[in-house]
Amino acid sequence: MDYRRLGRSGLKVSELSFGSWVTYGNQMDTKAARECMAAAWDAGVNFFDNAEIYANGKSEEIMGAALKELAWPRVKYVVSTKFFWGITEGPNTKNTLNRKYLMDAIDGSLKRLQMDYVDLVYCHRPDPNTPVDETVWAMHDMIERGKALYWGTSEWDAKSIRAAYEFAEKYRLRAPVMEQPEYNLLHRKRVEQEYAPLYKDFGLGLTTWSPLASGLLTGKYRNGVPAGSRGALERMKFLLPQLTDKAANEAVGKLEAVAKDLGGSVAQLAIAWCARNSQVSTVITGASRPEQVTENMKAAALIPKLDAAAMKRIEDITRPVSAA
Amino acid sequence: MDYRRLGRSGLKVSELSFGSWVTYGNQMDTKAARECMAAAWDAGVNFFDNAEIYANGKSEEIMGAALKELAWPRVKYVVSTKFFWGITEGPNTKNTLNRKYLMDAIDGSLKRLQMDYVDLVYCHRPDPNTPVDETVWAMHDMIERGKALYWGTSEWDAKSIRAAYEFAEKYRLRAPVMEQPEYNLLHRKRVEQEYAPLYKDFGLGLTTWSPLASGLLTGKYRNGVPAGSRGALERMKFLLPQLTDKAANEAVGKLEAVAKDLGGSVAQLAIAWCARNSQVSTVITGASRPEQVTENMKAAALIPKLDAAAMKRIEDITRPVSAA
Amino acid sequence: MDYRRLGRSGLKVSELSFGSWVTYGNQMDTKAARECMAAAWDAGVNFFDNAEIYANGKSEEIMGAALKELAWPRVKYVVSTKFFWGITEGPNTKNTLNRKYLMDAIDGSLKRLQMDYVDLVYCHRPDPNTPVDETVWAMHDMIERGKALYWGTSEWDAKSIRAAYEFAEKYRLRAPVMEQPEYNLLHRKRVEQEYAPLYKDFGLGLTTWSPLASGLLTGKYRNGVPAGSRGALERMKFLLPQLTDKAANEAVGKLEAVAKDLGGSVAQLAIAWCARNSQVSTVITGASRPEQVTENMKAAALIPKLDAAAMKRIEDITRPVSAA
Amino acid sequence: MDYRRLGRSGLKVSELSFGSWVTYGNQMDTKAARECMAAAWDAGVNFFDNAEIYANGKSEEIMGAALKELAWPRVKYVVSTKFFWGITEGPNTKNTLNRKYLMDAIDGSLKRLQMDYVDLVYCHRPDPNTPVDETVWAMHDMIERGKALYWGTSEWDAKSIRAAYEFAEKYRLRAPVMEQPEYNLLHRKRVEQEYAPLYKDFGLGLTTWSPLASGLLTGKYRNGVPAGSRGALERMKFLLPQLTDKAANEAVGKLEAVAKDLGGSVAQLAIAWCARNSQVSTVITGASRPEQVTENMKAAALIPKLDAAAMKRIEDITRPVSAA
Repeated sequence: MDYRRLGRSGLKVSELSFGSWVTYGNQMDTKAARECMAAAWDAGVNFFDNAEIYANGKSEEIMGAALKELAWPRVKYVVSTKFFWGITEGPNTKNTLNRKYLMDAIDGSLKRLQMDYVDLVYCHRPDPNTPVDETVWAMHDMIERGKALYWGTSEWDAKSIRAAYEFAEKYRLRAPVMEQPEYNLLHRKRVEQEYAPLYKDFGLGLTTWSPLASGLLTGKYRNGVPAGSRGALERMKFLLPQLTDKAANEAVGKLEAVAKDLGGSVAQLAIAWCARNSQVSTVITGASRPEQVTENMKAAALIPKLDAAAMKRIEDITRPVSAA
Repeated sequence: MDYRRLGRSGLKVSELSFGSWVTYGNQMDTKAARECMAAAWDAGVNFFDNAEIYANGKSEEIMGAALKELAWPRVKYVVSTKFFWGITEGPNTKNTLNRKYLMDAIDGSLKRLQMDYVDLVYCHRPDPNTPVDETVWAMHDMIERGKALYWGTSEWDAKSIRAAYEFAEKYRLRAPVMEQPEYNLLHRKRVEQEYAPLYKDFGLGLTTWSPLASGLLTGKYRNGVPAGSRGALERMKFLLPQLTDKAANEAVGKLEAVAKDLGGSVAQLAIAWCARNSQVSTVITGASRPEQVTENMKAAALIPKLDAAAMKRIEDITRPVSAA
Repeated sequence: MDYRRLGRSGLKVSELSFGSWVTYGNQMDTKAARECMAAAWDAGVNFFDNAEIYANGKSEEIMGAALKELAWPRVKYVVSTKFFWGITEGPNTKNTLNRKYLMDAIDGSLKRLQMDYVDLVYCHRPDPNTPVDETVWAMHDMIERGKALYWGTSEWDAKSIRAAYEFAEKYRLRAPVMEQPEYNLLHRKRVEQEYAPLYKDFGLGLTTWSPLASGLLTGKYRNGVPAGSRGALERMKFLLPQLTDKAANEAVGKLEAVAKDLGGSVAQLAIAWCARNSQVSTVITGASRPEQVTENMKAAALIPKLDAAAMKRIEDITRPVSAA
Repeated sequence: MDYRRLGRSGLKVSELSFGSWVTYGNQMDTKAARECMAAAWDAGVNFFDNAEIYANGKSEEIMGAALKELAWPRVKYVVSTKFFWGITEGPNTKNTLNRKYLMDAIDGSLKRLQMDYVDLVYCHRPDPNTPVDETVWAMHDMIERGKALYWGTSEWDAKSIRAAYEFAEKYRLRAPVMEQPEYNLLHRKRVEQEYAPLYKDFGLGLTTWSPLASGLLTGKYRNGVPAGSRGALERMKFLLPQLTDKAANEAVGKLEAVAKDLGGSVAQLAIAWCARNSQVSTVITGASRPEQVTENMKAAALIPKLDAAAMKRIEDITRPVSAA
């Protein structure tokens, strides 16, 4: 496993990392989380992604408990959380990035994680109803007070990220250093086009999510929806049309041949492909069983194998079905 | 009940809110306060207004005790306090906004309120004997130290608010975000004219007080001063000439017809009229009994009914008796 | 007793105040200090001056103990300390304003005073061996950390004060607000001439010391050195030539007539004369017995009596013997 | 022993000081360290140099324990530490100056040293993989949080020091004040040439290390490698080629005559020669026995004896063998 700088920052994250979305607290308990994290750690992962909204706080509780049991030195791993949706009802606690919510949220997350600070804290979505200066001040304050080390955004449009950066610059406050966008073979435009000027101008780092397009890129939906898969979960059924898209699944079929030639699975190929983009600092992967984690991490070995020829084969197969 | 942004800030306050002036500590004990606050809460109120000077600190003690009993999550409600008059005798504790007083005052209020922070803190009046930079630094420090989330002014002239804003801007300190002016059918000039450039230039928010003009707009003084009313209180007798003004009371009589047509009381009409101004973030109402609170909050239902025709009827009746 | 703003700041200090130089810890114990402070308090004094070097820290200990016994509300009085000479031997603790010394010194003073903060903290002399920016940062930090409310200088030349102010302005740090210079009928030049541009440009406030020119202006040295007087103390004998200056003592003799005409003592006249200068925020007086304090404070009644005619008489008598 | 300002800062350091590199924790225990430090203290030393990496944290533990036993007033001595190499394995803990490492490292050092703050904290080497702004913010934060008083660099190139200074200036953060370079008769270029503009532009101070060129300038390697010397240690054998350089050792032989003429040893001469450069604030010396410390400190007496003639003799002997 290699380590990359988070954008132009000095923080190093493993090129593949492990996140808790849709798993912890829903499908996984502390023991399962701990085993998966241990498997990731053994493969060289040093970044564990989280968010307040994942399982409404339970994901943080489980990760906190698991890390306590694992007892690694705090300086050796990187933990994140993210704020926007809120887990308490009310006008100042849902879908906002106002100061009141953010100041309350960070304390809640640290308590659930049993930590003094998180390494990375994200604004999980942009909030058009809070001026960017209020949000930048609040994020700056989290760092000033020692509750976080670096801050960034998730799924913000380039214009909003630029506004945050420029306000921070003007007021000499801590500027954002990373974005967490969706990025995979079928969803590329924002990372490859919209954000391009931000890499150059500010050295924006990326921690990308959904490398497998919610599982579509594993090939498991090529013959319908398997029992126990995410597509079969009631609360995930909004993903179903996308997961069962015919053209996309056919493309996945063709990718399997490429993957085989390179000595890996199509899922590993899809993960490695994300990491092949040098703007990506780390590719966040998910899993609910330790063996799955170990399988995913083998993608690291594929990254150097993605030469120009392999990339062209992949491009030819996926470009026609790439949505954005 | 709808929620509005406090000016351009991201904080959301209920369009109608509940304040403790002249009631808590004087006429009300903790039980009464708690019942009134609960009634407001049930109607959707999330902002509870207070000030150090209200009942010389007792109002804060009572609200603090009531909130403790009510046990709502801290993040769900907004509490304010205000500083200027002071409750300790002495040259640095009365009628001042100097650093010494302000730093001492915030600690006193937080102790009485049994809170770690207030959401909103106001400079209750301008202080011509303290330079605005000293006051802005002190208010900034309250926020920096986590003792308040947002700061503003109350009954400041537009020029002083602008000076505070510009000093904060120049020194990269936290700028004021709201003003608390008197605003009602009989007292309109400052909100509608003097402050107009501040909404445009700085996005100033308003939390307005005295929507009923000390009770005059309830109609209760149309036939003299009722026993038990505010006008009958010894310590409030300075309000008497205004409350018993003949022309004003006649206008109130005519407003009752408008209110009846819209399906509400004249008091509800007067409150709704304040909230009809989109520059107003919240209209602070007062009451000493829970039923009164519930009655007042019904004004929320009148707001959307105030169409152009209704507004014109109200304007024609009140413009001649509107003082300022 | 009237109260004046400390320069352009919003802090109000009594026009006459009470200091502990040469008395506390040397001639006075806690009981005597408490009684003198109580007498000053009764006369309306709200500012009690101190310094680390006074009796090598003992003056702070005694004032702290006295204030604890007096149990006045902390917000009602103003306490100062000053740093430069240091009370620990060593290259970083004597005659310096470097960061290491200052950060250590404030903690020592607060401990001796048994306080969370002092109101005023002074750089007791300029230090040519520390760059002004290092000193301004350290003084700023004392305020930022809540250990002091305002900072200033004592016996600095105008150019150094200006440099401190300009560095603070440029770096958006807390600027100095007051100077503590010697000022009396025989020592006037710095206050009246050198500092003049600073009042206009920065609103510098003054807390002046030695209104009685070490006792010379009481008239007590007109017929030699009385037993028990400061001039008779071994450690004060450096003052002797000045205290027994013939021309000066003759002038004091003539001032007694003026004082008598105004209904006061020559000491009261000398104190009142300092306070007559509107640039002076407060005149610090000293005493070792409560009756002396009460006598000194009667000078307040003389201030308004110093009309143009009286001032001319005083000027004619003292100008020829005024040293600087 | 004389004391000098650390560059343009107001901090005074003894012209000769005592460091713990290669000794504490490796060759020395707490008792030996305490005795050496006491000997240095008795000779007038007030600065004790340290670093996280020295003996992997043990050097800090030993110095902390020794200082506790010595019980000198904290304000009287100056302690340093340095960060870069890290003592925990991992991508964010070795060879980095990123925020995560630095914030963790300072807490670890303070714990090992049993102190609330260090006086001086250094970035032990430049880190090309962390932007200088991230490092400057982190160093600023250490000072802001009271964990250090001054910060600087060690073995940074002039361009990187300038970049740090300029970023701090632009963002109004604490700027670096000192560098810790190697400096001795055989290694002069960086101090004398590369850094020259930094003294003029920023008043950079120097705390120099290796005055004896790892022992070469003691003359002990003139006849081979003595048993028990540094050159004979397995972990120091990388120094061997340099220590046994023939031309250099011959030059040392000639220096002995000069030293004898001045009344000292060649080691004392070499140390005094470093201190003769007025840009040097302090020359850090090392020793493992108290008598050695005492011998080294006698170099202070040689400094004023290094007149133009003596300096020329030294120059003629060493210039040909001076490496850089």
